[in-house]
Amino acid sequence: MKKILNDPNQVLQDMTEGLAAAYPNELKQLSGTTVIAKKDAPIANKVGIVSGGGSGHEPAHAGYVGKGMLDAAVAGEVFTSPAPDQVFEAIKAADSGSGVLLVIKNYTGDVLNFEMAQELAEAEGITVDKVIVKDDVAAGDQPSRRGIAGTIFVHKIAGAKAEKGRSLEEVKAAAEKTIQNVRSMGMALSPCTVPAAGEPSFQLDENEMEIGIGIHGESGIERKEIATANDIANELTEKVLNDFDFTGEAAVMVNGLGSTPEMELYIVNKKVQAILAEKGINVYKTFVGEYMTSLEMAGCSVTLLKLDDELKTLLDEPSHAPAFRI
Amino acid sequence: MKKILNDPNQVLQDMTEGLAAAYPNELKQLSGTTVIAKKDAPIANKVGIVSGGGSGHEPAHAGYVGKGMLDAAVAGEVFTSPAPDQVFEAIKAADSGSGVLLVIKNYTGDVLNFEMAQELAEAEGITVDKVIVKDDVAAGDQPSRRGIAGTIFVHKIAGAKAEKGRSLEEVKAAAEKTIQNVRSMGMALSPCTVPAAGEPSFQLDENEMEIGIGIHGESGIERKEIATANDIANELTEKVLNDFDFTGEAAVMVNGLGSTPEMELYIVNKKVQAILAEKGINVYKTFVGEYMTSLEMAGCSVTLLKLDDELKTLLDEPSHAPAFRI
Repeated sequence: MKKILNDPNQVLQDMTEGLAAAYPNELKQLSGTTVIAKKDAPIANKVGIVSGGGSGHEPAHAGYVGKGMLDAAVAGEVFTSPAPDQVFEAIKAADSGSGVLLVIKNYTGDVLNFEMAQELAEAEGITVDKVIVKDDVAAGDQPSRRGIAGTIFVHKIAGAKAEKGRSLEEVKAAAEKTIQNVRSMGMALSPCTVPAAGEPSFQLDENEMEIGIGIHGESGIERKEIATANDIANELTEKVLNDFDFTGEAAVMVNGLGSTPEMELYIVNKKVQAILAEKGINVYKTFVGEYMTSLEMAGCSVTLLKLDDELKTLLDEPSHAPAFRI
Repeated sequence: MKKILNDPNQVLQDMTEGLAAAYPNELKQLSGTTVIAKKDAPIANKVGIVSGGGSGHEPAHAGYVGKGMLDAAVAGEVFTSPAPDQVFEAIKAADSGSGVLLVIKNYTGDVLNFEMAQELAEAEGITVDKVIVKDDVAAGDQPSRRGIAGTIFVHKIAGAKAEKGRSLEEVKAAAEKTIQNVRSMGMALSPCTVPAAGEPSFQLDENEMEIGIGIHGESGIERKEIATANDIANELTEKVLNDFDFTGEAAVMVNGLGSTPEMELYIVNKKVQAILAEKGINVYKTFVGEYMTSLEMAGCSVTLLKLDDELKTLLDEPSHAPAFRI
């Protein structure tokens, strides 16, 4: 394992402190926690938006804290759900009395711990609601699907709606519409290594790739010979298109999983755009970069979000989050 | 070599087309070239800013094309200087009659080819001047030093000055001040592989790191046993601080070279900030992420830019470039 670390068991604290230290005018770390919040949170008369999960997905989620997106993000150990008391601290930091929406990726631990935190908060009189993101078309029926890169669009849309001073119910409805309209599919050329484990979570031969991997070092649904960028773009995009009717306008995200050069993401994007043009899907906005990573995994995912007028407007609203400035 | 590519000899064209396709409302690729320019370039009554170099450093340089930064960027093959005729096309695209400033990284091929392009442009009556960035303190005396991540600050400052409608002479002076005030130092845990070569440019054992690497797969100035993040941050920052008097205010960039997880960059940043606080250097703004990469090299660099009131103001001006939105 070659990593730039101090102590493999100290990465969560080192990372959150280093992130807060990078943006001292915009973010704060809640003392004694792994919660990063807006410097001026809670914001009066605004629904608070809270997300989080295991670390190792940077810039998710703390990089998305800022005006127009999240009010607070809570990080667990690498690929491990944050404990309910930490999520509870994030909720308290985000609540100004207008209620808090939790954006949860669909993993058993995350759902359980965020729901326990919701109960703790409600017991103290805070109004909390939640949405669960399940955009990964790789495996399973919709209710059991994982949340991956599409989660960033949910942050953006919910954050923009909340910024407009809308009610918790209205913010939740916009987030739910986003979840209904977003699909993702990923692949990897190499696995990743959790620092405290010291060994990669699976092995791939020099000529192999894995289709349908998750973002927690899980192996995928199919292992096959490595294909061209065009074939990879085609396979990922087709799986997404076959799962939902994207006729009309869409936003595209070509997301790097950690160690894929941006050059390669642009090569994939070229083909994704060509496929969508051929299908008559109008691309309103494209995002290429590392948005939801899996440590140093090599690979990428393709996300499509079907847009209507409301979602387009909300997508275009300003965001001041360090990792998503518009 | 595991990469997401179509043809190793076609990466430059595929990449530039994929990049232009991602930002069709903001950028355009000049037909038959590898030049990416602002959609609305040339901008009337504004000095044009042009940069570029070999590809493999994405988002450098095309990701920095946009209002407030570059007017055009020209890309060569991977780690190879763009030909003079391509640079000439970029100059023509950027010139509105107010003149063009070339921001060149200090490599023999880049300097030669950009200067030849300058001559071609001047022969057609375009006023062109240049600055040469040499921020890498790793090796050699100042005149022979390489240009690395500090180049991004030169783009930002020159771009902001040009945006204010200042003369070519004034824009050049701001760029030169930035170059005088910026220093960088890098290290790697792993080499990178040029697609057309198919093999890594050097080898490192499992317990080794390389200090003072360049961004073109060059090996470094010293190979040693891999150290902690704190020791690495200390070594890079001390080398930078020993080369220039940063007393006062500074901007910091902790730059990932391609496959280093953002988590690790934040861990390095924590220590860099602690060192600077201890030295009494006030950090005005911090940038953590992948700004000047070397394909999938694992490692990072630390850049400091000493700021005065003019540079602070210019650093804070808006930028709409895809890879540097402020």
